[in-house]
Amino acid sequence: MRKVAIWDTTLRDGAQANGITFSVKDKVNIAKALDDFGVSFIEGGNPFSNPKDAEFFERMKSIPLKSARLVAFGSTRRKDLSAISDPAVKALIDSNCDTVVIFGKAWDFHVSEILEISLEEHLEMIKDTVEYLCKMGKQVYFDAEHFFDGFKSNSEYAISTLIAAQNSGASGVCLCDTNGGSFPDEVQSITKEVKDRISISFGIHTHNDTGMAVANSVVSVMAGADVVQGTINGFGERSGNANLSTVICNLQLKRNIQCVPEENIKNIYSLCRFVAETANMSVSDRTPYVGRNAFAHKGGMHIDGVCKNSRTYEHIDPTTIGNLRRLLMSEMAGRSSITHKLQALSYDVSKDTTEVQQMVETVKNMENEGYQFEAADGTFRIVAIRQLTDYKKPFSIDDIKVIEETKGDGFNASAVIRVSVGDKCEYAAAEGDGPVNALDKALRKALEIFYPSIAEVSLTDYKVRVIDSNTSTAAKVRVLIESTDGNETWSTMGVSTDIVEASCIALVDSMEYKLITDNN
Amino acid sequence: MRKVAIWDTTLRDGAQANGITFSVKDKVNIAKALDDFGVSFIEGGNPFSNPKDAEFFERMKSIPLKSARLVAFGSTRRKDLSAISDPAVKALIDSNCDTVVIFGKAWDFHVSEILEISLEEHLEMIKDTVEYLCKMGKQVYFDAEHFFDGFKSNSEYAISTLIAAQNSGASGVCLCDTNGGSFPDEVQSITKEVKDRISISFGIHTHNDTGMAVANSVVSVMAGADVVQGTINGFGERSGNANLSTVICNLQLKRNIQCVPEENIKNIYSLCRFVAETANMSVSDRTPYVGRNAFAHKGGMHIDGVCKNSRTYEHIDPTTIGNLRRLLMSEMAGRSSITHKLQALSYDVSKDTTEVQQMVETVKNMENEGYQFEAADGTFRIVAIRQLTDYKKPFSIDDIKVIEETKGDGFNASAVIRVSVGDKCEYAAAEGDGPVNALDKALRKALEIFYPSIAEVSLTDYKVRVIDSNTSTAAKVRVLIESTDGNETWSTMGVSTDIVEASCIALVDSMEYKLITDNN
Repeated sequence: MRKVAIWDTTLRDGAQANGITFSVKDKVNIAKALDDFGVSFIEGGNPFSNPKDAEFFERMKSIPLKSARLVAFGSTRRKDLSAISDPAVKALIDSNCDTVVIFGKAWDFHVSEILEISLEEHLEMIKDTVEYLCKMGKQVYFDAEHFFDGFKSNSEYAISTLIAAQNSGASGVCLCDTNGGSFPDEVQSITKEVKDRISISFGIHTHNDTGMAVANSVVSVMAGADVVQGTINGFGERSGNANLSTVICNLQLKRNIQCVPEENIKNIYSLCRFVAETANMSVSDRTPYVGRNAFAHKGGMHIDGVCKNSRTYEHIDPTTIGNLRRLLMSEMAGRSSITHKLQALSYDVSKDTTEVQQMVETVKNMENEGYQFEAADGTFRIVAIRQLTDYKKPFSIDDIKVIEETKGDGFNASAVIRVSVGDKCEYAAAEGDGPVNALDKALRKALEIFYPSIAEVSLTDYKVRVIDSNTSTAAKVRVLIESTDGNETWSTMGVSTDIVEASCIALVDSMEYKLITDNN
Repeated sequence: MRKVAIWDTTLRDGAQANGITFSVKDKVNIAKALDDFGVSFIEGGNPFSNPKDAEFFERMKSIPLKSARLVAFGSTRRKDLSAISDPAVKALIDSNCDTVVIFGKAWDFHVSEILEISLEEHLEMIKDTVEYLCKMGKQVYFDAEHFFDGFKSNSEYAISTLIAAQNSGASGVCLCDTNGGSFPDEVQSITKEVKDRISISFGIHTHNDTGMAVANSVVSVMAGADVVQGTINGFGERSGNANLSTVICNLQLKRNIQCVPEENIKNIYSLCRFVAETANMSVSDRTPYVGRNAFAHKGGMHIDGVCKNSRTYEHIDPTTIGNLRRLLMSEMAGRSSITHKLQALSYDVSKDTTEVQQMVETVKNMENEGYQFEAADGTFRIVAIRQLTDYKKPFSIDDIKVIEETKGDGFNASAVIRVSVGDKCEYAAAEGDGPVNALDKALRKALEIFYPSIAEVSLTDYKVRVIDSNTSTAAKVRVLIESTDGNETWSTMGVSTDIVEASCIALVDSMEYKLITDNN
């Protein structure tokens, strides 16, 4: 079976997308998820131009990856410095990554117009930098920026940049369609020519400005590229990069070319959601393979056909990649995935029981309200406990009042809460940074009196997402809270048009999770 | 110059998308807009299966189109009826469209498994129906459903369906990749074979299930198809249909193949928005050519490059298709990008002035606090006005009090606000869905008394982002509001640990933006 290496650049090129700003912790979490999924390269960022990326590489020194190689990104030396004296090159060496990638310009127009140097001088910059980084013990890759535009303008020069890198010790090069304007026929024929002209590994890096990033990646692989660069969910500047989930599914499921270990392909649906949630973006419902609508059928004839034989209107089995069929008009469910989830939580259930049917209904209703269980395992578990066991509410909230008012130049928030446990009740009040923080503090104060173990719980993450944003400030919001007690970490979710109510639901479920699982 | 005909099926196949339900009036408006834009065919719906579509065709009898042909969609006769007695065929005749299209099955598997008849019988159904419709004076087209899957399974049978239609008098046929699972190399070679085997016009109809609908349409046209079916914004079942805006721009701007009159291509940006608004959907910011981010640049090097020469990082001039370049302020905000942005706002500043230096400092400080100017053009403009002009605050907020409390099973939010303009002040109060909505309503109530034009402003988008999410509920949040007054759209931002305060900042800046720009 042929293999290609997946080179993920979500953390570098993906971070160029409008609206995405990863924290260092976000980057670490995504790197771990990508490693678990089985990509070959994780391009982590530019340690010179961005202090946050430098901190990320520092943090990653103590986090071992199972199989992926972490890559630091930079550029050829500046035209007026030697490689050894260029601080950007030094930052690559200091990044402590064994593998580094530098970009240089393969389009003569960029060399003369932007760098304002001779073509020969730029080849020297490539050679010097690759040689020096190799000498310092790095495995070096070379990204040929604007390779396709360059090839169309001056093919010999474009190829000579690859050869310069190859002859200076680079392990591989990458053909970049930086402006995203190329067509599959061009990418195919140019890739074939490159294959004839160089002897090292080479990859393909495409952008979606003509809507053909995926097609261009696939035809390039079919024509000989053995590395594919792209981003999860296609995040990236302008119209985005090649969407790796589409590329991977196309190659692995339809062309029998292995991109990730076979048993991991079923996790791609949740990986896309995890990365999107971390970026505070969404996975478009229409995304091929992993979108919520990718296997949604609405036309009556299509629904009838699919019920007779799914091949009639589905190009693959959606469960292969962790997705589900949705029949939009009629009743339908993810029985088998919910059965799997419950079995994983040690419930002894099988697919055709009424328990499973009830869970399917509940989950579906909650999803219609705006819940997304991929990101909220804690909420799923709480729902299962409430529905499938002899559940007793550990506490109930009788009253909440939150007041927020201007005080001097600033704002002041406070909350009062009344909590009952059995026939006892407790009032507590607290001030906080904003209404949700005040509510959180007051709730803990009241609960700790009944349940001291609540003191072990701390909230490690709080995210807010507007679901149907075009109804403006009255839009529905989804609040996601991540909690830990030192041993375990769980996520809970609340949905409401009212952010305080949504937060309250997620907070209460988090506390319940702790109390219920303590007793199990 | 070669020409291809654009066959729009937004009103038929596009209406199969999850979330889209067109009214008859919506359909009429879209048909008129498509005709103005210059598409060749407008597939309006199925007059038999859908009463709303029948009403639409009825309504269209009195609405003349300039150049497009309105098409009614149906299928071959039923297996147990003659064409003359099939009510679905009759509905096509009664639709009063001169042009009709019927679909039949080109995949042997569908004929045996779904229709449960012999292959020969299905060819008879095609022949009968085409012949009868021709006899009734219609110009008839034949959609070969699942043509590519059919070709891969039994190529001779797939081709024989096209030939049956051709020999019965059809004006054209269409090769449909109904399940959307095909790859460009397959589409190319199969299209070439079709071109050799039939003599009438033929089209291509693709779906995006492998992310290659656009590429497949383009390669098919390059291989000989002379009609392209698709939908505006790619609306359609599952992952959608080929996005016509991308296909048209690719063919017309990059392959010199005329799809619509040359002078109309600049209207494609607004056409996509008009259709999306009518469908109550949005145009994804990342859409090639027409997305809001399609020409948005964030990386410092990209901004410098584009300012030197737009070709460096843009594959076409965005104004050709009615779009605009956007330079996003990001962490890398420097003097040159701020100078460019101020110049774009008609400030006569140059890079080395103290005004620019002051703006750089302000922007950097605000970015450190958590602002992201890339998404908040309105806030950038307000900051520039405050800093660079003789600015007078149009109003000030003296006091705010927001109360949120449980009431019965739910939550109730209300806000009281005191606003001053000059020496006059006004109190206002409102209830709302959550604290922010209550505050928004109260603020408008108070301001409208002084400034009636505030009534023109509506909020079109509201987003919340937790910035440093690992400090949990006390984390900083960034609130982004998008507003419009019907003429212009602007975005403003607020940052605080308190979501109510952050929302208040963004709301106040949005109102100020309206009042200040009204006077300019």
